[in-house]
Amino acid sequence: MKILTLLTDFGLEDYYVAAVKGVVLSRAPQATVVDVSHQVPPGDIAAGGFLLAAAAPTFPAETVHLAVVDPGVGSARRILVAEWREQVFVAPDNGLLSFLHDEARIRAVERRDLYREAPGHTFHGRDRFAPIAAALLNGEKPDDLGLLIDDPIALPHRPPRRDGETLFGQVVHIDRFGNLVTDLPAEWLDGDRFAADIDGHQTRRRVEHYAELESGQPAVLVGSLGTLELSLRDASLANHWRVARGAVIRITLE
Amino acid sequence: MKILTLLTDFGLEDYYVAAVKGVVLSRAPQATVVDVSHQVPPGDIAAGGFLLAAAAPTFPAETVHLAVVDPGVGSARRILVAEWREQVFVAPDNGLLSFLHDEARIRAVERRDLYREAPGHTFHGRDRFAPIAAALLNGEKPDDLGLLIDDPIALPHRPPRRDGETLFGQVVHIDRFGNLVTDLPAEWLDGDRFAADIDGHQTRRRVEHYAELESGQPAVLVGSLGTLELSLRDASLANHWRVARGAVIRITLE
Amino acid sequence: MKILTLLTDFGLEDYYVAAVKGVVLSRAPQATVVDVSHQVPPGDIAAGGFLLAAAAPTFPAETVHLAVVDPGVGSARRILVAEWREQVFVAPDNGLLSFLHDEARIRAVERRDLYREAPGHTFHGRDRFAPIAAALLNGEKPDDLGLLIDDPIALPHRPPRRDGETLFGQVVHIDRFGNLVTDLPAEWLDGDRFAADIDGHQTRRRVEHYAELESGQPAVLVGSLGTLELSLRDASLANHWRVARGAVIRITLE
Repeated sequence: MKILTLLTDFGLEDYYVAAVKGVVLSRAPQATVVDVSHQVPPGDIAAGGFLLAAAAPTFPAETVHLAVVDPGVGSARRILVAEWREQVFVAPDNGLLSFLHDEARIRAVERRDLYREAPGHTFHGRDRFAPIAAALLNGEKPDDLGLLIDDPIALPHRPPRRDGETLFGQVVHIDRFGNLVTDLPAEWLDGDRFAADIDGHQTRRRVEHYAELESGQPAVLVGSLGTLELSLRDASLANHWRVARGAVIRITLE
Repeated sequence: MKILTLLTDFGLEDYYVAAVKGVVLSRAPQATVVDVSHQVPPGDIAAGGFLLAAAAPTFPAETVHLAVVDPGVGSARRILVAEWREQVFVAPDNGLLSFLHDEARIRAVERRDLYREAPGHTFHGRDRFAPIAAALLNGEKPDDLGLLIDDPIALPHRPPRRDGETLFGQVVHIDRFGNLVTDLPAEWLDGDRFAADIDGHQTRRRVEHYAELESGQPAVLVGSLGTLELSLRDASLANHWRVARGAVIRITLE
Repeated sequence: MKILTLLTDFGLEDYYVAAVKGVVLSRAPQATVVDVSHQVPPGDIAAGGFLLAAAAPTFPAETVHLAVVDPGVGSARRILVAEWREQVFVAPDNGLLSFLHDEARIRAVERRDLYREAPGHTFHGRDRFAPIAAALLNGEKPDDLGLLIDDPIALPHRPPRRDGETLFGQVVHIDRFGNLVTDLPAEWLDGDRFAADIDGHQTRRRVEHYAELESGQPAVLVGSLGTLELSLRDASLANHWRVARGAVIRITLE
């Protein structure tokens, strides 16, 4: 029984997610379908890529991940199939898979025979992506779907860096609880003496877990992806500090 | 392995959807359950019917569709089982299945022996609809569930029409992206010379897909259901024009 | 095929729910995973417990219920495995399982060998709870997971009571439709002559089901859990009366 994960910006109020599942299950009835999220902000490729990169490593080998955040639907943009760490990813060629480009074998799909006949050019999730995913679930190999490419579209990426005793990173995600997830590797911050600054807001505290936080006192901790995270007890630090995704974090070691 | 789809107005904050699934899986453990949506606005039968009609054709033969938007729960309203294009639909008799009345064999369920004993009369989704769906998943035939009827309740329906060079239709759905989905068949608009009007807002543009839209310039395209749709680049046309479901669209061919 | 239900406060915008499912399905690929809800308000243990208690009885024997509303994640709080009515529950020791304490055999998990190696101490849902649930789905017995305890943390609980001709209870839940679900057993209110009062708002009406409600006239009915519920036709009584969860209801029999 193979697993298919689904990540889209389709929302849950509409029939779009069900239509994708209907096509997949019509063609690959034995698949186990798991939702990653369908609440990616409309067209937000970076947000979708972050969630997929975070969730994928928990799934077993041979999982097929289908990601459709696709503002270019219907245009000439390519459809990619990527092999990465024994899993397979299907997504539009728009940067959604940037996180795995360096380690993956990536192909551009050229199998129009798989596509579903349908009116219009607005719903490739149902008419093209779902059939490709179903073919993979049914045992077709990525090699059968298209030729290798070496020029997938990548999102601009500014990796975290160290400059002497100063660390520079970004807030790459704000979760439901208002925690600020950064891209700074946790191992870059060894000790307890430091000053962290985001948009002029500062903290010098560090905790191990949320229950250690003192009310009203933001602190740094090691988050679930192995990067540094900033958090506030029983409240949203993002709201408290009015910080948005993309904000720069600077940590000075002391 | 048979598929059950679920469409309700129960929302996702409550235990209602899980209770329906619990009863179904207790009685038909081998079923594959797929959510269409549970975010139908409370009691909005027309919205629920639209989503179901749009999603159902993507599912395979023998799929059972259970739809519970049921403001009349507990009253004497009938429970319907409808056979349509090799699929089976279960729903309250309130117009939710209006879209398939003309082509379906429809029965009123008379099998109280299937019902679940439970307190109150407020949750037939759990106590009556789920058991009926489970019986169908377990191989019971619609014929075994009740007698054919010819008077299911239908929603008022005003079909799109052509009057000389003018097309009249309605906005039947507004999706997450703010696209205006109409009921005008795409094939009624052959050429590129036309004027479309909704509530006094106009466009004369036509595109093939969203990426062709120019910023700030609404246009008409062929949507995923084969009807005309109006869209705005990277923004909600529904908000931009302040258009609601039910608005009249008039297209004049030139 | 065993069932796992999931209840969390993780929301649906994030990768958290998918990560839990990825770990479960990596270890117990044959499981059928069913969401109860992931929209529990962040950290609201009482709300989570209510939903779980309401949904669980509809599921079959041997179902494993995993509930993660866990503000104490990473601290020394215990992880519980509880056997109740042929089902098994996994949850943090913080009161989330209060509803079953009196009837359950409860153990504190002591199987660190099951846990997933992972950075940080913020995501036990993925790193500890999911592996425990998978072990149970794979046939490990609760006895193998830890020793019985008799001191699980319980939420403060004020049971409903009768004082002569007066019933005292609480609003324990407000559903999507704005219905006020109370903890007063339906059988305590036999007749039709009574006065119900919540926060100074009153009704003397009783109906059997929602369709019997008259517009603008709140009434009492028997809800889907066998307790009394107050409702308003086609509108939210919670908004109309501005009533919140926890409000006291007093019914005087006449």
